[in-house]
Amino acid sequence: MNELELIPLLTRNLPTNDSVVTGVGDDCAVLDLGIPERLLLFKTDAVVEGTHFTCATPPEKIGRKAIARCLSDIAAMAGQPTAALVTIALPKEFDPEFVKGIYAGLNALAQLFGVAIVGGETTTNPERILISIALLGTVAKEKCIHRHGSKPGDAIFVTGHLGGSIDGHHLDFKPRLAEARWLADHFTPTSMIDLSDGLAGDLRHLLARDALGAELLKRAIPISHAAKVQAKAESAAKPPLLAALTDGEDFELLFTVPSRDAVPLLDGWKLQFPEVKLSCIGKITATPGVKLRDKDGFKPMPDHGYVHFA
Amino acid sequence: MNELELIPLLTRNLPTNDSVVTGVGDDCAVLDLGIPERLLLFKTDAVVEGTHFTCATPPEKIGRKAIARCLSDIAAMAGQPTAALVTIALPKEFDPEFVKGIYAGLNALAQLFGVAIVGGETTTNPERILISIALLGTVAKEKCIHRHGSKPGDAIFVTGHLGGSIDGHHLDFKPRLAEARWLADHFTPTSMIDLSDGLAGDLRHLLARDALGAELLKRAIPISHAAKVQAKAESAAKPPLLAALTDGEDFELLFTVPSRDAVPLLDGWKLQFPEVKLSCIGKITATPGVKLRDKDGFKPMPDHGYVHFA
Repeated sequence: MNELELIPLLTRNLPTNDSVVTGVGDDCAVLDLGIPERLLLFKTDAVVEGTHFTCATPPEKIGRKAIARCLSDIAAMAGQPTAALVTIALPKEFDPEFVKGIYAGLNALAQLFGVAIVGGETTTNPERILISIALLGTVAKEKCIHRHGSKPGDAIFVTGHLGGSIDGHHLDFKPRLAEARWLADHFTPTSMIDLSDGLAGDLRHLLARDALGAELLKRAIPISHAAKVQAKAESAAKPPLLAALTDGEDFELLFTVPSRDAVPLLDGWKLQFPEVKLSCIGKITATPGVKLRDKDGFKPMPDHGYVHFA
Repeated sequence: MNELELIPLLTRNLPTNDSVVTGVGDDCAVLDLGIPERLLLFKTDAVVEGTHFTCATPPEKIGRKAIARCLSDIAAMAGQPTAALVTIALPKEFDPEFVKGIYAGLNALAQLFGVAIVGGETTTNPERILISIALLGTVAKEKCIHRHGSKPGDAIFVTGHLGGSIDGHHLDFKPRLAEARWLADHFTPTSMIDLSDGLAGDLRHLLARDALGAELLKRAIPISHAAKVQAKAESAAKPPLLAALTDGEDFELLFTVPSRDAVPLLDGWKLQFPEVKLSCIGKITATPGVKLRDKDGFKPMPDHGYVHFA
């Protein structure tokens, strides 16, 4: 049994209460605790040595990545991050300088986004470092963007370039917080998610609840330079398009807007974020299933998203 | 270097912002996010196989303990818990029934206290199970009780019986949420903490900020039956009083009230919580240091609190 099979078993019949707006199944949990006009966003995410980083990764980048992943989830709901708790589990024989480096990277990114680090704990994990971040944020009630909500005909957008993140982007990415809030302030996005498991897998999360489908334009998929370089360097590497569709840890935003907004959005974005590519990659369909369109017609899209726990 | 030496290095110069009421150094972080008349409480706590439980521990008790520890911290600030996220790191070859058992125990205790489980994640930790809980709660602004705040002359109280928790209490304890809120509603406690590292160590957290001291009455320390049994069973075991002072994981409340409240509190408590022992164990002094008083006079108290990370 892997993670994907386990999660439905664990998330059945969870206890709930009146404060819960959205529980399991979105980028963050959403709570209404009575903050006037705002909702609370609540998220945890862990990185583990050997899976998300190695002992050769510079410690500052480990700490940076640990909090950046959570910040990307706050971005995916157009939220504003507020405060974080840091849990760090360490082998008994740890190097204090390495741990200080982890905190330095983490604190620097928190500072950049105005996030307070308000505590946490250290504990023992004898064989490897594990860092879990719990992050709180808020979002204006009418601006909160969920994974579900898109309609047939909506245009599908993605930020940045996809694939090949393992070359370095997974350690260096900048969570798209400003971009997401600008989007929610100036347009009416109907759904959004951050890409952690690959476009092919994560797109399905936008479609699942309402049994929708999507048509993507093959030539519109923004393939990263890293994915192209990897494909040339190794014969065993994924072709660049497959890498862009299925590699994990892009941490870009995937979202939908009503089709009438597509052109004004592209125009406004270019002025606001000239250094961040925004691509319209297709549209939502009423028919389930995801298809990829090229000059020869439509093909079903591979859906082997990266599974953390396989 | 152990945990106690590491933490001051990591908690220096943490990023902060206007929402922070209390950061590092109390049972929970306290945030003001604009909820009318209330503050937000934010806490994380992790349990690790081999340290806090073993593979022989019934899974329901592991899950129960994981969330009960965090609930105890919300209790220590007289708060009301609201919602939790559950991070579970598992070896690749896990037993789904065992994991379901962990969740069953966790969900049952959450349900009992009205806490919603709103998500979390599964990840891989190849060698052992690690569970980290992130918990949110709220507390009325004027009722929030911190670790600091006691004054010389204040009476020191502790709930329950202390020591020998390893015999089973550490898996079965009931967080003192109702007791703490009743206390804050009917009296004016000046400081409070939950006992996780042992009375001797945790008492110092109530004294540290204001360089206060304490005098404890030896015969008033409520020693658990388990600590007495352990002392009789093994010649190498701690004497019962030492166990009550230094064993970890009691998860009882230690708090102070102005001395004029001591008798009315004991009277009211007996009516309200007839099954929960409440002991007045001493008083706060203006002179730093903790002393234990018996029929022969005062002795300095051993301060070897249980250290998670030694």
